[in-house]
Amino acid sequence: MERQDEGLAFMLRYENVAWYEDGAVRILDRRIYPAKTEFVTCRTHQEVAKAIKDMVTQSAGPYTAAPMGMALAAYECRDMKEAEQAAYLEKAADTIAHARPTTAKRMEIVCGEALKAAKKAKSEGRDASLAIRDRVVEMNNERYAQIARIGVHLAGKFPEGGTVMTHCFAETIIGMMLRECRRQGKTIRLFCPETRPFFQGARLTATCCRDMGFDVTVITDNMAAFVMQKEKVDVFTTAADAICCDGHVVNKVGTFQNAISAKYLGIPYYATGAPDPGHPTVDTVTIEMRDPEESLMAMGVRTAAEGVRGYYPAFDITPPELVTGVVTDLGIYSPFALADYFKAAGEGRNRVVV
Amino acid sequence: MERQDEGLAFMLRYENVAWYEDGAVRILDRRIYPAKTEFVTCRTHQEVAKAIKDMVTQSAGPYTAAPMGMALAAYECRDMKEAEQAAYLEKAADTIAHARPTTAKRMEIVCGEALKAAKKAKSEGRDASLAIRDRVVEMNNERYAQIARIGVHLAGKFPEGGTVMTHCFAETIIGMMLRECRRQGKTIRLFCPETRPFFQGARLTATCCRDMGFDVTVITDNMAAFVMQKEKVDVFTTAADAICCDGHVVNKVGTFQNAISAKYLGIPYYATGAPDPGHPTVDTVTIEMRDPEESLMAMGVRTAAEGVRGYYPAFDITPPELVTGVVTDLGIYSPFALADYFKAAGEGRNRVVV
Repeated sequence: MERQDEGLAFMLRYENVAWYEDGAVRILDRRIYPAKTEFVTCRTHQEVAKAIKDMVTQSAGPYTAAPMGMALAAYECRDMKEAEQAAYLEKAADTIAHARPTTAKRMEIVCGEALKAAKKAKSEGRDASLAIRDRVVEMNNERYAQIARIGVHLAGKFPEGGTVMTHCFAETIIGMMLRECRRQGKTIRLFCPETRPFFQGARLTATCCRDMGFDVTVITDNMAAFVMQKEKVDVFTTAADAICCDGHVVNKVGTFQNAISAKYLGIPYYATGAPDPGHPTVDTVTIEMRDPEESLMAMGVRTAAEGVRGYYPAFDITPPELVTGVVTDLGIYSPFALADYFKAAGEGRNRVVV
Repeated sequence: MERQDEGLAFMLRYENVAWYEDGAVRILDRRIYPAKTEFVTCRTHQEVAKAIKDMVTQSAGPYTAAPMGMALAAYECRDMKEAEQAAYLEKAADTIAHARPTTAKRMEIVCGEALKAAKKAKSEGRDASLAIRDRVVEMNNERYAQIARIGVHLAGKFPEGGTVMTHCFAETIIGMMLRECRRQGKTIRLFCPETRPFFQGARLTATCCRDMGFDVTVITDNMAAFVMQKEKVDVFTTAADAICCDGHVVNKVGTFQNAISAKYLGIPYYATGAPDPGHPTVDTVTIEMRDPEESLMAMGVRTAAEGVRGYYPAFDITPPELVTGVVTDLGIYSPFALADYFKAAGEGRNRVVV
């Protein structure tokens, strides 16, 4: 591994993102990383669900933390009778998958894989918790391989010496696209809106870019259109918390307005990931409204006076007309033709969500 | 004065915004208000220029602080010979007016009025400093009366029970438009983007609205388009640091992207103020780039890791095609027909900039 990958790798190593061991799940606290590197230890699967709800881990982190929580649930019910165990795990999967509403469909799939692994392990007389953990590692490896292919397609859209704007923490895809740029010898510079209220852009995305050896500038969220115009941004790109099959992209709040600005300024917007069969249309999407008080705080300090309301939608929805392309592992698709992705993927193929 | 006006009035009383007395200018420190009510005391006109540059006072505050600084300059040179005094004051006016580049044209006019007042006082054997201070009070009273008329025209655009979004601290106009709403018995609710990096929206605009007895919600800057759509914003409105005669509006960074979102969502955007003869076109506008490190701080806490760049344009420019109307003291004008404002105002009329 090259030296520049180390910072990114730290955040992406399974045992740092989230790791089950000896009746506990340890999760990297991304609310304070990189200022501090600390872990939250969960002793029950309910604590794992709460950690996801409290955004101890975000972006793709919950797709590791959730099934690790299932490994913990399997540990909790290890001495129950078989039927009780099955019911216990089903209930745990429901609790963990619905820790946050907007991503519940994908989380159901991931927790479902954990249930399958547990069942198989039981039938073979193996330890269910360790079998689930093995399956998490396997799923992450598949996911990372898929995302590496997304990185190749996405990097192909960046001109040499180009300027790229992201929004929020794009996790693995940021690392993969930058690794691909390096492989191609392509130099780009990045602008990252800070992503209020939790500053994931300032804290996490920017740190990844720096760790990968790229020129990265953090801007406040109100500077996006100015920077797109003044600094001649070539591509606006984000990951997605859900891509509906009708082309609507659900992602961190602010993506919508940045996509509007990009469209107005003639800049392409590429969303990365894969369409989500759990969302045939945007109508199945629930936008999570978080504690309004969180928007009245910045880095732990209160911003507004008493008597002023807060407001906090975690995500927003960008309609397909603002999306230039959905960058998948199989290539770049029009948001209006995502059915083609499923055709290309093949009916029976076992696909892990990205 | 009604009870609800008190908080606003505190910020707008000349002796709180900025006040010359006994060889010093005292300026309300809006960087920390309302969490703390403290004043910065300037002993030289250069210190006043620095206070403006450092954003001790912002929005319309500098139009009081700058000529109060001229009163201080007149005090500094009180024992010089007449020709030396004139040269000293000219130089002081230049220093103060150019403390920040984007608003320099308006500041030149205000400092120019102070120069005239000083000259007249000298010729009549009166104290120049006190004469300038009297002129500042007079100009502010004229300005407040103009802005009260703007408030009437603007409030006329709000439906009863309507939802209004602002951006940044709109100073006097916020108070005047809300006072007018109250006078008309019109209820509105307000959404204020927090306005990074200095949180003027969260700290100052929201406090004004609360003090005036209105329902006010602070949102982070990345939520503007979401709120416009979801909460059915009726009107987006801002003040302006400069309105070019060709209809370009210069205002706090973020105005541009909010105006793009408003246009996309079919919401009218009204900019308030008067066209600025100092800017016949947008070509004369210089956007102030401030210390990039300021964007990497939030409420005094560092957000990003070392090795990450910052970036800080104080303002942005909204083109006339995104501006529904310019709300002036004489009525609402198309941004493409601002010459009509000057016709209505009359050639010889002595107009104070708003």
